[in-house]
Amino acid sequence: MSYNSFGHLFRVTTWGESHGPAIGCVVDGVPPRIPLSEADIQPFLDRRRPGQSRFTTQRREPDIVRILSGVHGGVTTGTPVALQIENTDQRSQDYANIADRFRPGHADIAYHWKYGVRDPRGGGRSSARETATRVAAGAIARKILGERVRIRGALVQMGRHAIDRARFDWDEVDRNAFFCPDPEAAKAWAEELDAVRKAGSSLGAVVEVVAEGLSPGLGAPVYAKLDADLAAAMMSINAVKGVEIGDGFAAAALRGEENADEMRMNEDGTVRFLANHAGGVLGGISTGQPVIVRFAVKPTSSILTPVHSVDSDGDEVDIQTKGRHDPCVGIRAVPVGEAMMACVLADQLLLHRAQCGETGAGRLPLAKK
Amino acid sequence: MSYNSFGHLFRVTTWGESHGPAIGCVVDGVPPRIPLSEADIQPFLDRRRPGQSRFTTQRREPDIVRILSGVHGGVTTGTPVALQIENTDQRSQDYANIADRFRPGHADIAYHWKYGVRDPRGGGRSSARETATRVAAGAIARKILGERVRIRGALVQMGRHAIDRARFDWDEVDRNAFFCPDPEAAKAWAEELDAVRKAGSSLGAVVEVVAEGLSPGLGAPVYAKLDADLAAAMMSINAVKGVEIGDGFAAAALRGEENADEMRMNEDGTVRFLANHAGGVLGGISTGQPVIVRFAVKPTSSILTPVHSVDSDGDEVDIQTKGRHDPCVGIRAVPVGEAMMACVLADQLLLHRAQCGETGAGRLPLAKK
Amino acid sequence: MSYNSFGHLFRVTTWGESHGPAIGCVVDGVPPRIPLSEADIQPFLDRRRPGQSRFTTQRREPDIVRILSGVHGGVTTGTPVALQIENTDQRSQDYANIADRFRPGHADIAYHWKYGVRDPRGGGRSSARETATRVAAGAIARKILGERVRIRGALVQMGRHAIDRARFDWDEVDRNAFFCPDPEAAKAWAEELDAVRKAGSSLGAVVEVVAEGLSPGLGAPVYAKLDADLAAAMMSINAVKGVEIGDGFAAAALRGEENADEMRMNEDGTVRFLANHAGGVLGGISTGQPVIVRFAVKPTSSILTPVHSVDSDGDEVDIQTKGRHDPCVGIRAVPVGEAMMACVLADQLLLHRAQCGETGAGRLPLAKK
Amino acid sequence: MSYNSFGHLFRVTTWGESHGPAIGCVVDGVPPRIPLSEADIQPFLDRRRPGQSRFTTQRREPDIVRILSGVHGGVTTGTPVALQIENTDQRSQDYANIADRFRPGHADIAYHWKYGVRDPRGGGRSSARETATRVAAGAIARKILGERVRIRGALVQMGRHAIDRARFDWDEVDRNAFFCPDPEAAKAWAEELDAVRKAGSSLGAVVEVVAEGLSPGLGAPVYAKLDADLAAAMMSINAVKGVEIGDGFAAAALRGEENADEMRMNEDGTVRFLANHAGGVLGGISTGQPVIVRFAVKPTSSILTPVHSVDSDGDEVDIQTKGRHDPCVGIRAVPVGEAMMACVLADQLLLHRAQCGETGAGRLPLAKK
Repeated sequence: MSYNSFGHLFRVTTWGESHGPAIGCVVDGVPPRIPLSEADIQPFLDRRRPGQSRFTTQRREPDIVRILSGVHGGVTTGTPVALQIENTDQRSQDYANIADRFRPGHADIAYHWKYGVRDPRGGGRSSARETATRVAAGAIARKILGERVRIRGALVQMGRHAIDRARFDWDEVDRNAFFCPDPEAAKAWAEELDAVRKAGSSLGAVVEVVAEGLSPGLGAPVYAKLDADLAAAMMSINAVKGVEIGDGFAAAALRGEENADEMRMNEDGTVRFLANHAGGVLGGISTGQPVIVRFAVKPTSSILTPVHSVDSDGDEVDIQTKGRHDPCVGIRAVPVGEAMMACVLADQLLLHRAQCGETGAGRLPLAKK
Repeated sequence: MSYNSFGHLFRVTTWGESHGPAIGCVVDGVPPRIPLSEADIQPFLDRRRPGQSRFTTQRREPDIVRILSGVHGGVTTGTPVALQIENTDQRSQDYANIADRFRPGHADIAYHWKYGVRDPRGGGRSSARETATRVAAGAIARKILGERVRIRGALVQMGRHAIDRARFDWDEVDRNAFFCPDPEAAKAWAEELDAVRKAGSSLGAVVEVVAEGLSPGLGAPVYAKLDADLAAAMMSINAVKGVEIGDGFAAAALRGEENADEMRMNEDGTVRFLANHAGGVLGGISTGQPVIVRFAVKPTSSILTPVHSVDSDGDEVDIQTKGRHDPCVGIRAVPVGEAMMACVLADQLLLHRAQCGETGAGRLPLAKK
Repeated sequence: MSYNSFGHLFRVTTWGESHGPAIGCVVDGVPPRIPLSEADIQPFLDRRRPGQSRFTTQRREPDIVRILSGVHGGVTTGTPVALQIENTDQRSQDYANIADRFRPGHADIAYHWKYGVRDPRGGGRSSARETATRVAAGAIARKILGERVRIRGALVQMGRHAIDRARFDWDEVDRNAFFCPDPEAAKAWAEELDAVRKAGSSLGAVVEVVAEGLSPGLGAPVYAKLDADLAAAMMSINAVKGVEIGDGFAAAALRGEENADEMRMNEDGTVRFLANHAGGVLGGISTGQPVIVRFAVKPTSSILTPVHSVDSDGDEVDIQTKGRHDPCVGIRAVPVGEAMMACVLADQLLLHRAQCGETGAGRLPLAKK
Repeated sequence: MSYNSFGHLFRVTTWGESHGPAIGCVVDGVPPRIPLSEADIQPFLDRRRPGQSRFTTQRREPDIVRILSGVHGGVTTGTPVALQIENTDQRSQDYANIADRFRPGHADIAYHWKYGVRDPRGGGRSSARETATRVAAGAIARKILGERVRIRGALVQMGRHAIDRARFDWDEVDRNAFFCPDPEAAKAWAEELDAVRKAGSSLGAVVEVVAEGLSPGLGAPVYAKLDADLAAAMMSINAVKGVEIGDGFAAAALRGEENADEMRMNEDGTVRFLANHAGGVLGGISTGQPVIVRFAVKPTSSILTPVHSVDSDGDEVDIQTKGRHDPCVGIRAVPVGEAMMACVLADQLLLHRAQCGETGAGRLPLAKK
């Protein structure tokens, strides 16, 4: 527990403001002797980096990560890994006019009420820029999970338009600017988002993250539940307003027999589930099926349309946000969601190993591959 | 952090199995000098108690709570409050036939894989019975929050049928067996659930919990975010598969200007929000608006219809659950959701007071009532 | 972290007051499938139980422990183990006359200042009675450590009189009323403590606890250091005022070459230390040598001699404590110190397994038996 | 809880190796609106800096601290404060010859057994260099405590020679190279340490840290006891082998009536203690008297005299440490001990405020100034 940390044992503490000299994180609890260099982390940061298409903010940040501790001779040493990313493209003057004004939908007034002071430049601590450090931590988490666990994310809805599940193709995700698994949807979205962007408006989105290859047994009965940890992790991402596991809210509309994930035996003595409404989690513990999480991202609050607000003197003002903004922050939330999934799973892997030992389920008669 | 505890400072550790001698919890971090007796807790347990209508399980548990520590002379002493509820109606023989079988949709097989052993009687630790201790803890949390903060919950969807928001009336909630705020919906649900119950099936549901009167400033920027804590708290309730704050998943379909919660000044110098799409939380911190959370509960997995499964010997079996079950567990999840809301808010209140002091926002020029 | 819990992963939360209906603890994080029943715990409680000789308080508590959860079919299930001990010999009237008076050396006035309220009966929460629950938790910790790890404690000083190290014999510890490893010292102490007891006075003491058979590698570099955890654990025992590891304060008087624990190779390829000034811990991590901890216990503050004090009205009073008290609380602190050692080591074992895996050091070329 | 963090709410996470590019820490939980700049921190680092006399290591580190986040407009913002100190004087070649050898008394072999890998340059993570970050964090803690709380440390024993308490003068502490409060002792120590240094040997020491002006009521009954936190904090400092509070180990030799800190009323209605054997802590909670902690530091293990050891191939070797070392690490442990005292007190202040509110004891009839 603390204000700016997450994870039980794979513990990530992040720091930094959007327009400070740098942002970074300390990753504690990393197992020793894992090969690690900046080259393992940079590709994930590159994937999240702004300015890669006309659909994301035009802020130009190279987001070069530097490892400052915890690695020696090319491997982790078991001591904390400090990661740092310099802020290079800080146009703080963009924010001078909003220093004393509270942008609706932003954390401005909440920070003001809580702390009585805030760094207004680029949203300060509440900026989505903080998520870059999560992505960096996620790259380390993936190394702990190993190659058997595959974590992939996709944008499955933008504004009112969801993908067609029949066309879902993971290979499409990296072929468009939206991490969209449906090539037809991607085309439609491009058109719509162009219009929205030109109108100075923004769109919400839904992100889906799937982890395959996970062992059964990760999680805990009550508050370190795997799904509770995932819910907190995803909800802690900027602009996220909802999280669901497996069928999620749709499960509320099902009858018991529709929702049952029935089981049969495979010939090799392993268990086969006939469905995965549960999204890979039962009673807070993984079943070995794909872990499926979706989260809703609200539309970017920074828009050109003037909105009514107030300032710190108690005067009414109208705010029109110019700056450089993502017309749909949901897009860049995809690699962030993947990273949070990786962090939670690595953390739960260590937590499981602590209590139940390394071989865990392996000793039991009923195998699950 | 630990497996069976939640809360940063208002810390609840629960223990107990469905058919053990008792269940209970230890509530640590309770401020001193708060008047507290069993009479403050019992009404909330009574509200959650099974067997109060034909729509909940016929298990008969009086659920009498006993305070074992932390109270002296009628007030809390600042030391841990231990609460205990005896299990009286344990018909463990109901479960003998499923001791080695894994009920689909239940935690049975996940526990088996994780621990290699489990208490099968009534689901053991994974039973919804554990939530009685949360309700008890929630009653203490409400005392910390004081009367200014009002927390209420309601069932807003059962199966495919949502309430009509135009008929939402909090006063109706206690007039039907469903905690339903819409009297017309309650009637329709009664009919439907009767049919479902007789068919041995079950329905999912959506619960909404609202907290009014909360001060602005509760929460923290990154991982102790108020909404992240709420998401974990609600997702940790048995059978919950999704959580949303404010507009939640619907926010994904909005444009920026539709989602803006604009602000104006009241004559008395306080701030007025023109909408509450954010559900009372911005940047992880409360705004003083009502905090609104909804969560989806899947249909009870224990149904009469036989379902395919396997047993611990690796044989295929068909399972028909007889026992005594809730045809819609979402109903009794209402007081549990309220309790979790109370626990999270009390915890965040203490966390805020630690960092920012008691008067916090009060010292600032811009007031928010 | 919380007020009344300790341990990172083997997490013990204790509750209860000296004269409440019961005391107890919840032990979370216990690995599954460990054989456990009350019979594994009771002998340790019996060893600490008051009233077994004229040298301990005449309060008569059978201290019967009851397991309320977390065990099924004779083994732990991985869910929290709740332990409870009823308070049976509560003569609260003994304390009526001190309800508003602050006994010097006791926590009375500190609790008053902190909480503004306290349960004065038997010291309430600050009573050494709380340590019974630690002893119970320690019994579970020993089961996790297994038989290879042997934890033993002894009283090595009472008042001004230390044992003669040349006569140190673990077998003597259970042959006298003092847990004294030196039979000559035990005789002298009996005489002295009889006189002290009759005079209504009390004596301090020093306890030594040794753990043998521990694997190297337990601990962590900075704040989860094995010795830091041990220091906190021992200092948290009532009346303890000092803790040392290995040579402890005596190390301050050594020169570097005197303090060096030199190493040589055994013929079987294992490492042999030529001394153990470090007490089994280097850099916060165990070396496989015996872990040696000593702690100082102040003389019981409850004495017949009247002492100057004040009451809650701000009046000066003289206090003479009658009640039933230990003339040397250090004696019964021996099993408590052993229990805390067991809890810390079990906790660190799980913490090590989480980060480094079960086989840890086993994979390394240089073996340490 | 985590491997490299300490504090409940004022939470310090440190990172970095002796010869990496930098060391640093993240301080989370800092209250907002506290004036803070590098100038508030640097003087404390300067006080601990090596190379200031012939009695400390000749490594030349300017130890310039840089604040990377959490401060805006000259005040803290409530978000994490990241501090960083570059390592500039890294003569890693000094350590090449010991990369595979385990220096007795150092953490080398323990790290090897735990992690199977280590950064041997300057002791890597186990270097006393890490304590610079604690000193930096301590400077922030002092700002939270305010000027009313005064924290001072002194060296009260070097090798076999303790100061004369009759000559104790805080003003002397900054007039000699030893932080020695007794000018006569300082002269004698200078002579002795010169000889020891020239002989390539080293001495142990005892440090005393005193906090005056603290409010009563800080601490908690069982595991967040103020003295337990202090014990862990001091024991976590490199080379510390013992910690005591108040009379500490000497209390073991006292009788009850000698140890009683009797109380009387002052004319202004406040309470006066007639002695402070308890060192300002009763039942784990502060009494408002000076908090007194002493800790023993073992002699530096790096000495010129060759000592027997082994290497990672399992061969026996003799090690003579050349490099640049402190002949008495206890000296530079003085500002570190002060910093840890400040961190623990600030943390407990926040923890108390969380549970009991800001005015706490102030509302009670019996005042303690």
